[in-house]
Amino acid sequence: MVKGVEFSAVASGIKAAGLDLGLVYFPEAARVAALYTRNRVKAAHILYNRRKGRGGVRALLVNSGCANACTGPEGVDDLAALATELARLLGIRREEVLFASTGVIGKRLPLGTMVAALPDLVADLGEGHLDSFARAIMTTDTFPKIVEERVQAGYTVAGVAKGAGMINPLLATMLAFFFTDYPLGPGDLKRLLPTLGRESFERISVDGDTSTNDTVMLFSSGTEEARAGIAPFRRSLARLMKALSLLIVKDGEGATKVIHVTVKGAKKRGTAERIARRIAVSPLVKTAFFGCDPNWGRIIAAAGDAKVPLDPSKVEVALQGEVLAKGGREVPFSEERLRKLMDAREIELLVHLHDGRGSYDMYTTDLTYDYIKINASYRT
Amino acid sequence: MVKGVEFSAVASGIKAAGLDLGLVYFPEAARVAALYTRNRVKAAHILYNRRKGRGGVRALLVNSGCANACTGPEGVDDLAALATELARLLGIRREEVLFASTGVIGKRLPLGTMVAALPDLVADLGEGHLDSFARAIMTTDTFPKIVEERVQAGYTVAGVAKGAGMINPLLATMLAFFFTDYPLGPGDLKRLLPTLGRESFERISVDGDTSTNDTVMLFSSGTEEARAGIAPFRRSLARLMKALSLLIVKDGEGATKVIHVTVKGAKKRGTAERIARRIAVSPLVKTAFFGCDPNWGRIIAAAGDAKVPLDPSKVEVALQGEVLAKGGREVPFSEERLRKLMDAREIELLVHLHDGRGSYDMYTTDLTYDYIKINASYRT
Repeated sequence: MVKGVEFSAVASGIKAAGLDLGLVYFPEAARVAALYTRNRVKAAHILYNRRKGRGGVRALLVNSGCANACTGPEGVDDLAALATELARLLGIRREEVLFASTGVIGKRLPLGTMVAALPDLVADLGEGHLDSFARAIMTTDTFPKIVEERVQAGYTVAGVAKGAGMINPLLATMLAFFFTDYPLGPGDLKRLLPTLGRESFERISVDGDTSTNDTVMLFSSGTEEARAGIAPFRRSLARLMKALSLLIVKDGEGATKVIHVTVKGAKKRGTAERIARRIAVSPLVKTAFFGCDPNWGRIIAAAGDAKVPLDPSKVEVALQGEVLAKGGREVPFSEERLRKLMDAREIELLVHLHDGRGSYDMYTTDLTYDYIKINASYRT
Repeated sequence: MVKGVEFSAVASGIKAAGLDLGLVYFPEAARVAALYTRNRVKAAHILYNRRKGRGGVRALLVNSGCANACTGPEGVDDLAALATELARLLGIRREEVLFASTGVIGKRLPLGTMVAALPDLVADLGEGHLDSFARAIMTTDTFPKIVEERVQAGYTVAGVAKGAGMINPLLATMLAFFFTDYPLGPGDLKRLLPTLGRESFERISVDGDTSTNDTVMLFSSGTEEARAGIAPFRRSLARLMKALSLLIVKDGEGATKVIHVTVKGAKKRGTAERIARRIAVSPLVKTAFFGCDPNWGRIIAAAGDAKVPLDPSKVEVALQGEVLAKGGREVPFSEERLRKLMDAREIELLVHLHDGRGSYDMYTTDLTYDYIKINASYRT
């Protein structure tokens, strides 16, 4: 458990059924850093949070079932009203309350319903309630996503996320929160989150769609002035951010497989990244993986479509360690054997350009019937 | 019928069953212009054709079932061998033969099988055989795609295409051919095809994947030195290129709907285009259309993800003429009524940015179970 962080959750009625409202409370003010979506259309909580929490954070209220995006100035005002009410109940200042939302875009928050649920939320707070908080932020997720690790010298870091759909290649989750009692100063927070975010949440993709609500937050409740060196904490946080981002891919909407796309041998790292991202969002590549089809032609075609220089005659493609194409051409392989190798939950795809030393790797899912099923009827 | 253009088709055995090899023969040399894929990985016929046909074209050999892409120099040599044999049979020069291929990437052409089929192809040639030629170039298409129109003053222009999958936003078809007996000079050809291509084949998308084989060709068999003014011909060609490109969308893999995406009121036309293309490839938007879900939030989120400036507070979204959002916010509408309006083969989507006079429109499909079905098992 992370010292100095309490959680609670209730079924407030935003959704037809189930937990939909979660609260995090910091008995002593915590410090926070956040990464927000690069989508030009930003949810109300992103617009609201930017001006808040600078003097310390005491509460974070998160809801599922309603994204509170495309709701205009009223959407931001709704959060201000919630902050006033929650601050009153907790005996804190309203500037110390932050928010996050996930769900359907374009609908206002049901303010009355939510305000009515706040007293129960406050009453239920406890350091051990992270699990119910994790459930309260789920939408199409099939399991709650929690990671936790003890850092050397008695500190803990825990993370919780919701994922599933609208998972995009640049800042790739709807919501993820990390909590630690390791004391982090403003400089640490500012430095750590973007750097480690690039290695984790920015390296996953489910459908290539960037949410209006993407949010990753890191809270530190630790207040000790003396502290152990930051290196072990940093390693723990990096490990947990990676682990949590992978749980999101694993639970991608309709996904049956996680595909680890590695591009090597590019002239520049940026070239490798462009090619990896292009492969990771190709519907033809993703459906081939669903069908256990070693269709390396679609992979090389996607690479060629990345709008970066590429010499097809040098490209090598390997699946599960088996080389399928070399010098841009097929090498003999047993299709039957490959199909069996591809019938796995985790697939290793390597595209080697043999053109330099730049490399990049990321994670994506296959594209399945269930993705269509979930998304053709999400609002009903 | 287009004077001076003969067609034929056979089931040569490239595919397990059905017509798979088509021939076009010009008794008198024709002039040609072509648009090829922008994918960095280009099929052998694209590499081969570039150096051929400058002194006039007498034959075009097209196969389905094998893309002859990622086949290295041998793939190009295979075409040279076929050209030699076909030229011998037709009594023409091998430099007068062009090619196009479509099908699975990475496999060599079955040269023996194809050479053995050439005599039958040549024997079957006739001006009235365009329909069987159209069938020979189909892969996952569900119907042959032919358009034809009489131009003023006794000329005709006809077009034929294959589409279905790997239909991408920039040069968006695998193969399309136009034939006319209207006499076009090299200057006309060079000017017309790129201009009209931008208004037709570059404005369609099925899955956002750019093929390695995309080819649009325009052949003119007319040899008269005096000719009527080009304006009526140009109008006919523009109309037919648009019509043929729409047939490709209509027959997009698994598609149940054609969605006409119009973006208006952008500061620049380029901004409108970027937003339209981003919406047209969003899996979340496309699945919502499949589900008849008036989910304007996904549309606005896709627009915001186009990496161009966008003021969400000005955006208006309308479906089938009904405004769903204005000033970036929902306006009251009957969800039931909208669902009924969306239960149609053709959907009009308008996104108005109210920020200038730039506009762009294009066509895309919904994303369905059948797209997954077709592409998870394409090679089997």
